[in-house]
Amino acid sequence: MDHDRSNADRGPGGIERRRRVPTGDEWATAITRTAPNEIEIRGYPVDELMGRLTFGETVYLLLRGELPTPAIGKLFGAVLVSSIDHGVTPPSTLAARNVATSGAPLRDSVSAGILAFGTYRGGDIENCMACLQEGLAIHRSGVSFEDTARQLLEKWKGHGPNPPGFGHRIHTRDPRAGRLLQLAHELELDGEHCRLLRVVERVINAMPGRTQHPLPLNIDGAIAAVCGDLGFDPDIGNGLFIIARVPGLLAHAIEERARHQALRRIDPKDAHYDGPARRRLPETRK
Amino acid sequence: MDHDRSNADRGPGGIERRRRVPTGDEWATAITRTAPNEIEIRGYPVDELMGRLTFGETVYLLLRGELPTPAIGKLFGAVLVSSIDHGVTPPSTLAARNVATSGAPLRDSVSAGILAFGTYRGGDIENCMACLQEGLAIHRSGVSFEDTARQLLEKWKGHGPNPPGFGHRIHTRDPRAGRLLQLAHELELDGEHCRLLRVVERVINAMPGRTQHPLPLNIDGAIAAVCGDLGFDPDIGNGLFIIARVPGLLAHAIEERARHQALRRIDPKDAHYDGPARRRLPETRK
Amino acid sequence: MDHDRSNADRGPGGIERRRRVPTGDEWATAITRTAPNEIEIRGYPVDELMGRLTFGETVYLLLRGELPTPAIGKLFGAVLVSSIDHGVTPPSTLAARNVATSGAPLRDSVSAGILAFGTYRGGDIENCMACLQEGLAIHRSGVSFEDTARQLLEKWKGHGPNPPGFGHRIHTRDPRAGRLLQLAHELELDGEHCRLLRVVERVINAMPGRTQHPLPLNIDGAIAAVCGDLGFDPDIGNGLFIIARVPGLLAHAIEERARHQALRRIDPKDAHYDGPARRRLPETRK
Amino acid sequence: MDHDRSNADRGPGGIERRRRVPTGDEWATAITRTAPNEIEIRGYPVDELMGRLTFGETVYLLLRGELPTPAIGKLFGAVLVSSIDHGVTPPSTLAARNVATSGAPLRDSVSAGILAFGTYRGGDIENCMACLQEGLAIHRSGVSFEDTARQLLEKWKGHGPNPPGFGHRIHTRDPRAGRLLQLAHELELDGEHCRLLRVVERVINAMPGRTQHPLPLNIDGAIAAVCGDLGFDPDIGNGLFIIARVPGLLAHAIEERARHQALRRIDPKDAHYDGPARRRLPETRK
Repeated sequence: MDHDRSNADRGPGGIERRRRVPTGDEWATAITRTAPNEIEIRGYPVDELMGRLTFGETVYLLLRGELPTPAIGKLFGAVLVSSIDHGVTPPSTLAARNVATSGAPLRDSVSAGILAFGTYRGGDIENCMACLQEGLAIHRSGVSFEDTARQLLEKWKGHGPNPPGFGHRIHTRDPRAGRLLQLAHELELDGEHCRLLRVVERVINAMPGRTQHPLPLNIDGAIAAVCGDLGFDPDIGNGLFIIARVPGLLAHAIEERARHQALRRIDPKDAHYDGPARRRLPETRK
Repeated sequence: MDHDRSNADRGPGGIERRRRVPTGDEWATAITRTAPNEIEIRGYPVDELMGRLTFGETVYLLLRGELPTPAIGKLFGAVLVSSIDHGVTPPSTLAARNVATSGAPLRDSVSAGILAFGTYRGGDIENCMACLQEGLAIHRSGVSFEDTARQLLEKWKGHGPNPPGFGHRIHTRDPRAGRLLQLAHELELDGEHCRLLRVVERVINAMPGRTQHPLPLNIDGAIAAVCGDLGFDPDIGNGLFIIARVPGLLAHAIEERARHQALRRIDPKDAHYDGPARRRLPETRK
Repeated sequence: MDHDRSNADRGPGGIERRRRVPTGDEWATAITRTAPNEIEIRGYPVDELMGRLTFGETVYLLLRGELPTPAIGKLFGAVLVSSIDHGVTPPSTLAARNVATSGAPLRDSVSAGILAFGTYRGGDIENCMACLQEGLAIHRSGVSFEDTARQLLEKWKGHGPNPPGFGHRIHTRDPRAGRLLQLAHELELDGEHCRLLRVVERVINAMPGRTQHPLPLNIDGAIAAVCGDLGFDPDIGNGLFIIARVPGLLAHAIEERARHQALRRIDPKDAHYDGPARRRLPETRK
Repeated sequence: MDHDRSNADRGPGGIERRRRVPTGDEWATAITRTAPNEIEIRGYPVDELMGRLTFGETVYLLLRGELPTPAIGKLFGAVLVSSIDHGVTPPSTLAARNVATSGAPLRDSVSAGILAFGTYRGGDIENCMACLQEGLAIHRSGVSFEDTARQLLEKWKGHGPNPPGFGHRIHTRDPRAGRLLQLAHELELDGEHCRLLRVVERVINAMPGRTQHPLPLNIDGAIAAVCGDLGFDPDIGNGLFIIARVPGLLAHAIEERARHQALRRIDPKDAHYDGPARRRLPETRK
């Protein structure tokens, strides 16, 4: 998979592009170039990235093809951090633990857990992104944010108990959602997607019956809005959740193997937490 | 899964620990505490981590249970960056692409790719970590690094063409390995594992026949040494590779769906790279 | 998971049913009862089934809850046999082989291969079953089979190059489809689904342009019609394909490990067949 | 993947073998030949097998390369039937159900469940086959079955609480094991592997302390012995378990989706059976 410098030309932004004339069966990839002693991630030598870009920034580069600004890197990192784990109760974590207790290697546990990021979970990011895109199309045709929100809510009726991006089994105020939107605002990266989402949140919770039972924005909704404003396509939404949650699945698989008996019966109702108590980041990290 | 503050006590380092008396079926987890409106990763509220720790630093916290120093965070991030992707030829990437071309969702592609991090690939990190640990035990009993290296090499004969951590299908000088060890040195985080590995490298390549055909240190070996000096157990080695490579699998699955025909026959020999040409990080990022 | 005989009563067909009063968290399963020294598959002791029902018949019992007649057992077995393998080119087989060449255990290979039974392959059975069901609803409202077929074909336009159940990458006359429908006919198990499918086949191929390029019925369409007439719900269609194809994936994973070099690059275009030449079943088996 | 008849020759048994001269990259497969309108499983046209071989017999053909005799077909079918399901408690079934409750397609559930056929479960067949092979090598060197059994038991000490093939979490007399060995005996297919296993069983249970607490032979041990006498290699053992159990995983995934709420918390301790009560095969099936 080497390439011929004589065919180089310059594409947009002055980026030199190597061209190779395709024959019948040839197919192309634009992600990573490997040759003896050379590995380039979207053109950047990987050894040059090591120690200079964070892992989150490199993930962004890999997926988008361009370096994130420091602000974008920070916000994108926060997106990943937000979803890194959610304890033992998600079906994905239980799938991973059940595979781990059978004695399988860690990768089997992680692989099984990923398969439980099904339609109802981890799929909300994509649905919400698609809805926000739809809403912005309506808005750009001249409809106010408020009326756009009402139109979207009307559409979503009957498609589930809650619109995508709202509600949660446990949280009445998802701490991750508020923090992500706040960070986007501080970094001046919140745009129309975030704005529309906020309006939808306001409109939903102004409806009759909602005063007693507010419907909170959840982290999938916040991620959807932030990623929309960062320019991601909706179909990548679930992918970001996978990247973020794999460390969590791994940690649970490792703990299952280390602390519990092989082939045990795992009842999530009997789980309790015995890890560190709540603690704060030292001042120097803030 | 709430907990009773009255049972709190203080463990090492003054960290308050919540205790709960286990009944018959109860089982414990020490990773993440979830309660209404609260999510704590090893005790730290996740919303507090968002925007303050990088994703790589949070992965470290999740796996080790404690915050990394900035230097450790930087080195650990470089470990993850080093393995983020390696183009279309690894069996894992081809497994992921074959699943993607069938029309399956992204998670199925990623899940399948992970399963190909088998014994021969991605398993090298663990093997190498275990070997280095074994070597350090020998060294601590009074044997010099040089003689320890020779003993290890003698043991590894017949266990494969190369000792774990050395050799590569493509690279004669793995750019990632040198960079990682250099960074560990700059950050003053290289210790006995790294030192032993360097001695093994020297001893191997001083052997007859190696002048023409040096046996390069590969990235798995470098990661093994660095993670050993960071205090990780060997069994976590493959897990780090999984976390690092999942974004790569995802990128390839996305590209497969976006650029190529569904249900196509994927011949890796016919792949070529048509992405950005080699480019350098701007000065401001270095 | 024992049960209390005193709560037994008799349900339809005189089958004794054990009842247990559910408490809050209780949930029920009706597939297999296990107790010390007892395993019952839909009520039948498994040791009684061994040697008396074939594996295919037991699969039917497991999925449908009742014993198949010998004729149904024969037809259902033929459904499974039809899809047991299709060589090295399907993406699922390549996914399995790529995992196998990485050194992973057989189950990882099989697991990865299954994930490539995606939307475009293995999903055709369900789509076709659903379409036939839709068509039969139309027919039962008074429309002739011929007009029903035309309505269905009109609906399917724009949903893909071929209607579900028709067309194949390789075969212009899928030998499995014809045989399955013939067997259903011989066993007098072909009903309205099969009849409608045959009419659709006739109508499609009477259309202009089809004389030169007939559109063959494929095995997914035949399986869909047969399973519809056997009373299966559409959502089980893909499940039958999984059961049938797992032995094929396993055989390929085993062969990959046994015959080929670890971590090899697998190019499907370079594969050729070197197994037994065509041979016939001995007369005694027919 | 066509082939050239002019290169045909005849191999052992008069079976015509097609030869193709391999070039550099070529690789071969001997399982299934596909060409336009032709699909041959180990040489037999698949449409010819449909309705004449059972699914279990076709699995045998696929894996072994030759047709089973009717007696072998019956015994092999019983091996598969024995392991088709074991209720909701195995970790594999719980992994499958957790994936199913997330809303994932059936194939994801089955795939996840397979990954939990780990070292401790489903791996016993292989271990036991390997041990029996080892024992038969000892026996063929002139040691009696009784002394061979004692040697094996001595070896297995410290390798786990029970020797492979013995013991069970639930059953004190595994009904499947006895039935399988009885069937092998009736069909005159039991050989040295079965004989050695029976001797091991006798020797174990004659040991002090075993009168009160007999150690039962389990189905994995019986399958191992039977498959050894059928000529299977040990490494295929786990593969047979996968083929057998996939229908069970599928049935549980289907039931989970059909009967229970999406994203529910699955506690195996709260499961009870509400399916058909114990019933007998009609006389005509025996």
